[in-house]
Amino acid sequence: MSKGRLEAFSDGVLAIIITIMVLELTVPHEPTIEALLGLWPVFISYVLSFVYVGIYWNNHHHLFQAVKVVDGRVLWANLHLLFWLSLFPFATAWMGENHFAAVPVAVYGFAALMAAVAYYLLVRALIRCQPEGTVLRRAIGSDTKGKISPLVYAAAIPIALLPIPYAPLVSFAMFVAVALIWVVPDVRIERTLRA
Amino acid sequence: MSKGRLEAFSDGVLAIIITIMVLELTVPHEPTIEALLGLWPVFISYVLSFVYVGIYWNNHHHLFQAVKVVDGRVLWANLHLLFWLSLFPFATAWMGENHFAAVPVAVYGFAALMAAVAYYLLVRALIRCQPEGTVLRRAIGSDTKGKISPLVYAAAIPIALLPIPYAPLVSFAMFVAVALIWVVPDVRIERTLRA
Amino acid sequence: MSKGRLEAFSDGVLAIIITIMVLELTVPHEPTIEALLGLWPVFISYVLSFVYVGIYWNNHHHLFQAVKVVDGRVLWANLHLLFWLSLFPFATAWMGENHFAAVPVAVYGFAALMAAVAYYLLVRALIRCQPEGTVLRRAIGSDTKGKISPLVYAAAIPIALLPIPYAPLVSFAMFVAVALIWVVPDVRIERTLRA
Amino acid sequence: MSKGRLEAFSDGVLAIIITIMVLELTVPHEPTIEALLGLWPVFISYVLSFVYVGIYWNNHHHLFQAVKVVDGRVLWANLHLLFWLSLFPFATAWMGENHFAAVPVAVYGFAALMAAVAYYLLVRALIRCQPEGTVLRRAIGSDTKGKISPLVYAAAIPIALLPIPYAPLVSFAMFVAVALIWVVPDVRIERTLRA
Repeated sequence: MSKGRLEAFSDGVLAIIITIMVLELTVPHEPTIEALLGLWPVFISYVLSFVYVGIYWNNHHHLFQAVKVVDGRVLWANLHLLFWLSLFPFATAWMGENHFAAVPVAVYGFAALMAAVAYYLLVRALIRCQPEGTVLRRAIGSDTKGKISPLVYAAAIPIALLPIPYAPLVSFAMFVAVALIWVVPDVRIERTLRA
Repeated sequence: MSKGRLEAFSDGVLAIIITIMVLELTVPHEPTIEALLGLWPVFISYVLSFVYVGIYWNNHHHLFQAVKVVDGRVLWANLHLLFWLSLFPFATAWMGENHFAAVPVAVYGFAALMAAVAYYLLVRALIRCQPEGTVLRRAIGSDTKGKISPLVYAAAIPIALLPIPYAPLVSFAMFVAVALIWVVPDVRIERTLRA
Repeated sequence: MSKGRLEAFSDGVLAIIITIMVLELTVPHEPTIEALLGLWPVFISYVLSFVYVGIYWNNHHHLFQAVKVVDGRVLWANLHLLFWLSLFPFATAWMGENHFAAVPVAVYGFAALMAAVAYYLLVRALIRCQPEGTVLRRAIGSDTKGKISPLVYAAAIPIALLPIPYAPLVSFAMFVAVALIWVVPDVRIERTLRA
Repeated sequence: MSKGRLEAFSDGVLAIIITIMVLELTVPHEPTIEALLGLWPVFISYVLSFVYVGIYWNNHHHLFQAVKVVDGRVLWANLHLLFWLSLFPFATAWMGENHFAAVPVAVYGFAALMAAVAYYLLVRALIRCQPEGTVLRRAIGSDTKGKISPLVYAAAIPIALLPIPYAPLVSFAMFVAVALIWVVPDVRIERTLRA
């Protein structure tokens, strides 16, 4: 089974997710700087989620460069990933509109965690169906970032719920830190393909 | 006539349908667990419909792997399928927001039934325009699941409307059962293509 | 300049237009048959516009089958067509929510007229930039339907505004009639390509 | 790394941006000409932004015609461009609904400025990763329009905020002027490729 339509469908879903998030930036009624500045928590949340979905698109792109074939299990593993990513617009808006309150930040962390787990399962499903000798396994290598990220998300959930002032902001800072270590593109595969 | 643009357009419409359904998950105003849990019927409906549209995408993908050419009749049979699928966001939201009340569940079953009928008509239109000796006819085989599914939907509609407590939940359970027998991917075509 | 990305972008925009129209089908609050039936004018308008956008997609698909190259003028002629089609969700919702009142029906006719004109201009721009001896000119032929449709839309606009009961419904019936003569797919090009 | 998926993803995002802007054209409740005419500032803003996104799509299309390979830096430069363009629906609606008030017009200018800067950075990133002797550098040439446009946007921001009647309309006229000099398609690359 060829990978072309899976890539096209994933591109479509990711493009829609990344774009409809902006619909949560409700247009203020007054034409003032104050009205605009009142949107900052929603805007910051939007920027974070835009970068997150961008990271997933980049990694998905790199990953499938090294993929030759897909099977039914991969199709569902991919839809499973898209499902959790489709909850990002909801989690982003809830977190932003409530100015990083504890529960919405924890829920955002949960969505991020589940997406990371789904990505891991997609990688396993892909490795399983490639013919022997493909570059995919070598290309992925030790995948340190892929192992650290879900741990950070898992830690951020209880931290957000701690009865301590600003605890959810610590969790938010952890999300930002994960984004930063990923924006450096996933050069592992690129390097292996080139070698 | 080549099948490329038909696949691309269908991927686009299915990607949008599967993604805009999440817009019906209205962001609650309070940042509490209770507010989140209040969304469970809408969320469960969303999960079901996400899986349904995913099934259609997977089956569409498998089906067109075995297709060589399309004609005008196929284009319209495909648009007819997309039309009924485009009503899923509406039916999903109405069912979820009304906590699986009788009429919305019956309407959901009607949309599912019409989509199944439209898929059947698409398969017929495709078989009709393929040159002799293509794998499509053999690949589809007896299509037991494709025949059972619309029967289940057709039965679920009157069941939902029975004046018995929890009757609509029985219909909903029937929808879930159909989803489960389909998530096992449509390996029939895959197997024939491989043979 | 290759036509691939122009087709992909047009497919994307048409897929979004055809799908977001369903968002205007507002989910009713009550789970009753009456609440559902109250949506009939919006639903009928949605069906008509779904078919219209489907016709444009089909014709666009057929047209570009016979096209070899595109130039800058074609890119803008294509965007011009997409602009008028992008107003269909607005015109559809306004017409449906006002139960086919005079002004919204006239505005719908205006949008349909402008889209037809834009399609005609796109065809001219395409013919102009094809190398000699391509099948496009022969394929399009006399294009009777393409000439009748805008005339019908142009006539439907003043008819909708006549101070006579049910006059807008006559215009609506004219829109339906045009849709019907087009659903028979644009076989002219198909035939020429085959010959 | 091939450019195909980057083009497909960008097409998807641009198609969604250009189409969801029309959702800001809120359907009026009354079926009257007056209600329709009351939408003119939102409509005019929509037309301007439709043309702007169309220009970016055309230029993106031309630019990538001359591109052979992309790298991780290009992926992020492209996402950066899409980010600023994704704010156009917000800026457009805010400007239109407030009848071209000072602050929203200035914010629109800021979004336009940042998108122009992001496009410039994307061009730099592309030139950097092309192999020697590609047509890209020659194709881009002196890029006078690409240098003038951000200057005009940068000037339009303080002008909109001047405490003078109609100052924001002068800025708006500057946006329209930039659009007009770009609609003439980006023939520079086309010409070089042909030569």
